[in-house]
Amino acid sequence: MEIIPLERFSHILEDKPAVIRAVRQGFMDHAQGKTVLPAPVQMLFRNKEGELRGDCHVKTAQSGTLPFFCIKVATGFYNNSASGLPVNNGLVLVMSSQTGAPLALLQDDGHLTSVRTAAAGALAASMVSGVVSGMVSGTFRLGIVGTGHQAGLQARWISAHCNISELTVWGRSQQKAEALAASLKGAAPVIKCAGSVSELCAQSRVILTATPATTPLIAAQDIRPGHHIVAIGADSPGKQELHPEILGLADFIYTDDHDQCLHHGEFGHGVRAGVINAQSDLSFGKSLADPAGNPLTPDSVSVVDLTGLGAQDLAIASLVYGHICAASIPNNP
Amino acid sequence: MEIIPLERFSHILEDKPAVIRAVRQGFMDHAQGKTVLPAPVQMLFRNKEGELRGDCHVKTAQSGTLPFFCIKVATGFYNNSASGLPVNNGLVLVMSSQTGAPLALLQDDGHLTSVRTAAAGALAASMVSGVVSGMVSGTFRLGIVGTGHQAGLQARWISAHCNISELTVWGRSQQKAEALAASLKGAAPVIKCAGSVSELCAQSRVILTATPATTPLIAAQDIRPGHHIVAIGADSPGKQELHPEILGLADFIYTDDHDQCLHHGEFGHGVRAGVINAQSDLSFGKSLADPAGNPLTPDSVSVVDLTGLGAQDLAIASLVYGHICAASIPNNP
Repeated sequence: MEIIPLERFSHILEDKPAVIRAVRQGFMDHAQGKTVLPAPVQMLFRNKEGELRGDCHVKTAQSGTLPFFCIKVATGFYNNSASGLPVNNGLVLVMSSQTGAPLALLQDDGHLTSVRTAAAGALAASMVSGVVSGMVSGTFRLGIVGTGHQAGLQARWISAHCNISELTVWGRSQQKAEALAASLKGAAPVIKCAGSVSELCAQSRVILTATPATTPLIAAQDIRPGHHIVAIGADSPGKQELHPEILGLADFIYTDDHDQCLHHGEFGHGVRAGVINAQSDLSFGKSLADPAGNPLTPDSVSVVDLTGLGAQDLAIASLVYGHICAASIPNNP
Repeated sequence: MEIIPLERFSHILEDKPAVIRAVRQGFMDHAQGKTVLPAPVQMLFRNKEGELRGDCHVKTAQSGTLPFFCIKVATGFYNNSASGLPVNNGLVLVMSSQTGAPLALLQDDGHLTSVRTAAAGALAASMVSGVVSGMVSGTFRLGIVGTGHQAGLQARWISAHCNISELTVWGRSQQKAEALAASLKGAAPVIKCAGSVSELCAQSRVILTATPATTPLIAAQDIRPGHHIVAIGADSPGKQELHPEILGLADFIYTDDHDQCLHHGEFGHGVRAGVINAQSDLSFGKSLADPAGNPLTPDSVSVVDLTGLGAQDLAIASLVYGHICAASIPNNP
């Protein structure tokens, strides 16, 4: 088993178009039933008062077309930053589908999960800008709700993949929002902070939410025709960023995985609130496979519910592991 | 993250009483609700004809009393032996419950899973021999159904933990049964092979099954008063070693975990066949905590259904990791 530290593969992740292509393929493979994704394991860690202080997800995926499968471990411990530690951590195991032997440990410190999530957000955001064969055209105004690590990554990856005319940031902490906005210099011609979520919504076509919120941040009255909402935060039961009525307003709801989104995504909140039925979602992976069939109009309201798939982990692990293997073959033609 | 190869901790596993104590404590902690065990991940690998050729289990466990949790990966690829490779493989990750950081990778090649399973079998077998405060008295005749790696381990661990007067082995391959019996020299005063499962049952008080069977090996007419059956093999949906009617005959059914055994253990087969009800099991962990309350009599029929718990993985990983940490502190008092 090869132990592969992040420094050996972090350069691969800097090639955003390659990562986005791999993650897009992962979603399409999943939509076509080419990957097997067992229900993820989720462990929650609470303090003595019962408040959530951390979580650990284990996601696994196998594909009939690959000689390996992967087991991804990602943790988020929210109080780590108070001790100067990163909130996110993790690793990815690459295992042989032929013998069951561990092949490689990608010591990614959670970075692969962050990046594949950012790539998914970029793909989801680009749905409004007329993507044809992977090329994005059209510009839009982007609003980012959240000021954490993933919020910043989303802004950078969407900016790299799409043409953003204006970027607005909102966070519960005005100070953190301003710091994030300052750090994003160059990601859009205009970058600013909004004083409220309503203001952010009024100034954005695409609204991306990337927070650990457990109560809705966006209200139904904030949503107007043309809004395309990409919800990243709800990756565990109990998390929620959108008021369920927004799901009722949406003309189109996309889920990365029907069952997973029903279980703990925004989609499930909408179904349980009784505002939508459990068959009202479209497959995000299928929409990526058929951009010409994209039904979004300048006036439609749409929600993309991304809970994070083992298929994304397998896609990015394959990209990295393929590079490492190729590099380790001397005189590789 | 410390990468710890098997050779650094295999000696710890040779102390069978210490391992059995740790695993017993793991079962008791689980029975008392002290451990959180998410539903395990199970991945199945099939050949082109749809036949099962391998599996991978991911089991996780956390305990409020430990500063770490564990993620155990175990694979079994049944055709490996044809290529001279071990069937089982795997590893255990020890993760911080405080920060979510990976602390250690125990490169156990599946050995920790094998050993904690053998320890569980030894604890289950010892239920018939009057265990008081961990000490075993009384002798019994043991029958082992199966000739694989785990069958051999079970014979050795039960022999080390209990007083066996006679050991009988049966396998589909007479040759493999004889090879196993020969390799077990010293495990009991008398060691022999049976010509059939019925013959093995007639000559044994405790019957331990450790096969990957998918159809019952033991029939109800083989079972007589006094039989104590420990079923190890059924660790995945589809696996089955006992005819469901045996569950109906049993005076006492013990499960390592009610939900897991209902899902894919012998207990579940009995419930689905309608011969027992879904509330008819007793907790194996509780029985270990209260050996004086053991209701087994010389004439009762009992079944212990062991599907394998993350709590066992956490227990054995704690034992190993505790030793490694203690050894790595210079001048540890």
